[in-house]
Amino acid sequence: MPHISLPEGVPGIRSLVLFRPDTGQPLYELAQILLRGESPLSPAERELIATYVSFLNACVFCSCSHAAAARYLYKDEQQTVDLVLEDYQNAPISDKLKALLTIAGRVQKDARTVSTDDVALARSFGATDRDIHDTVLIAATFCMFNRYVDGLATIAPAKDDISAYAQMGERMGTIGYVMPKPVSAAV
Amino acid sequence: MPHISLPEGVPGIRSLVLFRPDTGQPLYELAQILLRGESPLSPAERELIATYVSFLNACVFCSCSHAAAARYLYKDEQQTVDLVLEDYQNAPISDKLKALLTIAGRVQKDARTVSTDDVALARSFGATDRDIHDTVLIAATFCMFNRYVDGLATIAPAKDDISAYAQMGERMGTIGYVMPKPVSAAV
Repeated sequence: MPHISLPEGVPGIRSLVLFRPDTGQPLYELAQILLRGESPLSPAERELIATYVSFLNACVFCSCSHAAAARYLYKDEQQTVDLVLEDYQNAPISDKLKALLTIAGRVQKDARTVSTDDVALARSFGATDRDIHDTVLIAATFCMFNRYVDGLATIAPAKDDISAYAQMGERMGTIGYVMPKPVSAAV
Repeated sequence: MPHISLPEGVPGIRSLVLFRPDTGQPLYELAQILLRGESPLSPAERELIATYVSFLNACVFCSCSHAAAARYLYKDEQQTVDLVLEDYQNAPISDKLKALLTIAGRVQKDARTVSTDDVALARSFGATDRDIHDTVLIAATFCMFNRYVDGLATIAPAKDDISAYAQMGERMGTIGYVMPKPVSAAV
């Protein structure tokens, strides 16, 4: 049960931005620009970084929903997302993305530990300033979203409710991040 | 030295939002609404929560600059900010704010550990849903800002450069969070 009174039946971040829309607005704008705006990283790659960080933070709602978005965007016949969460160093992704996931993992744990070696490795595989910047900001942003969602104990479909998360993933992969309508107006 | 090419001589978050203004805009909007907009918590109390979380994350730029803002807003003759960072349970602040700082500390470490008992204690001292919401979102937001600033190794004045941080604190306490002007336009 959530720690505060939230719209009933609405999961995760959506219930929180309905509770306080004036802070929800910049949060949704940030997600949309960061995950769908112009970047050297594809939307699928960016969703994968978001998923990985949310998985490290053990945030069920964010990891399952962004995993679903990444699967939708990867048209994931190779099970890329699951293989990355299992062992990204041996997953079927580029060396650049592996190096960026290492940076994202450091940001999740203690951002001061991102080293010049980590950055040099990513650059040796073609990462630019923007790749590195966007990776760090995505990782940092999901450290916020995960904490917001779990710190207020918002509700979430069970991990194994594949269909609920697949629906979210498709919405996130097509429409992107658009503020939810108030519950009364949505009825 | 920063991990990417940032405007020279500009510290912390300001250098990052100049590097990528389209993500900087919603970040500054969020800070302004969350720390200066309508809330049952005063701007000074909100800056104190931001400072405490940044201190726990050992982010020099964010903890020193928000401590300076909190000192400015508290007109801090009693050294409230320093006493809070030393031992908030015995600092000259309200029981409500102590209970909220406990919640903020849990969010910083692992947001899933915020308990119904933590929330009940805050409510017993008068905290409302909005106090609890705003505390969790401030704590989560600074877990993002701290990581963004440190993950890219932005520059910061030394901890003991009291005058540099006092200037920032006064600006944050008066003007609030307004996007910095591009370096070329500021000359």
